[in-house]
Amino acid sequence: MRILGIDPGYGTTGFGLVDAQRGSNRLLRCGVITTPPGADFSARLEMIYEDMRKLLELAQPEAVAIEELFFGHNVTTAIGVAQSRGVILLAIQQAGLSVFSYKPMQVKQAVVGYGNATKHQVQDMTKRLLQLTELPKPDDAADAIAIALCHARSSTSLLAGLQNK
Amino acid sequence: MRILGIDPGYGTTGFGLVDAQRGSNRLLRCGVITTPPGADFSARLEMIYEDMRKLLELAQPEAVAIEELFFGHNVTTAIGVAQSRGVILLAIQQAGLSVFSYKPMQVKQAVVGYGNATKHQVQDMTKRLLQLTELPKPDDAADAIAIALCHARSSTSLLAGLQNK
Repeated sequence: MRILGIDPGYGTTGFGLVDAQRGSNRLLRCGVITTPPGADFSARLEMIYEDMRKLLELAQPEAVAIEELFFGHNVTTAIGVAQSRGVILLAIQQAGLSVFSYKPMQVKQAVVGYGNATKHQVQDMTKRLLQLTELPKPDDAADAIAIALCHARSSTSLLAGLQNK
Repeated sequence: MRILGIDPGYGTTGFGLVDAQRGSNRLLRCGVITTPPGADFSARLEMIYEDMRKLLELAQPEAVAIEELFFGHNVTTAIGVAQSRGVILLAIQQAGLSVFSYKPMQVKQAVVGYGNATKHQVQDMTKRLLQLTELPKPDDAADAIAIALCHARSSTSLLAGLQNK
């Protein structure tokens, strides 16, 4: 299954496309959508929306996994990210694709097996699971790949869970 | 100047179209865009976006004024509203229109002349400024009209300010 993982932002939105098979995951492509800091906020939203549409067209995913928003210290940043996430969800909806949201803790749990894992541990497991020699850069792309892997594990774990009983 | 005021939400988005002339404002139309609570979140975002595009096409505003987000007690609601605001800003941007954001306090200041005015005071002044016998319902529509009036006052107040010197 081709899964597109997305780490939403308005300055930088990371994406990672993974071909997930039971017991074997392959990284197909990854990168970031960026917008110029000096541009008008609405213009930046339009860029993100247009780029996301092109990406979905190119990547042809079967499912999309996106990070659920976590409101940390900087509320102003969070408002911007939420608005950006809105236009990303719109592009996914218009493409007729199913979208799955995961909390940061769920991503850590699925990838490392431990909800309080460090960023370094997530990156290390991401590299191993995809048999990569180096971690993709920038961090936003690596984070998006981890989200795709989280969905890969979650969507194939029902049977695994039953088998473990 | 035809000003469209918007009070963004994901369950209910209010709108109010005002024809603003110096010293005289007229309400042209108002109402709400609603989405069904049971529907998928991304589907609701798409409905808001589509309805906003149709509204902009019908209303033909020269400027759009929208409420800036205020993060109160309910962060979950605020995240939803912010995502909805994202697709609303996208529709405005795609229509080639200028958008102006106002904080709730700025709306109160512009309409009532007092940043800590109560909701009732804002509604009362909205009614008076537009010479209405009754306040438009629901509240979201009335709030959107107040936002349009705030922009009407702000965009014509430079000269007024100079004249007062």
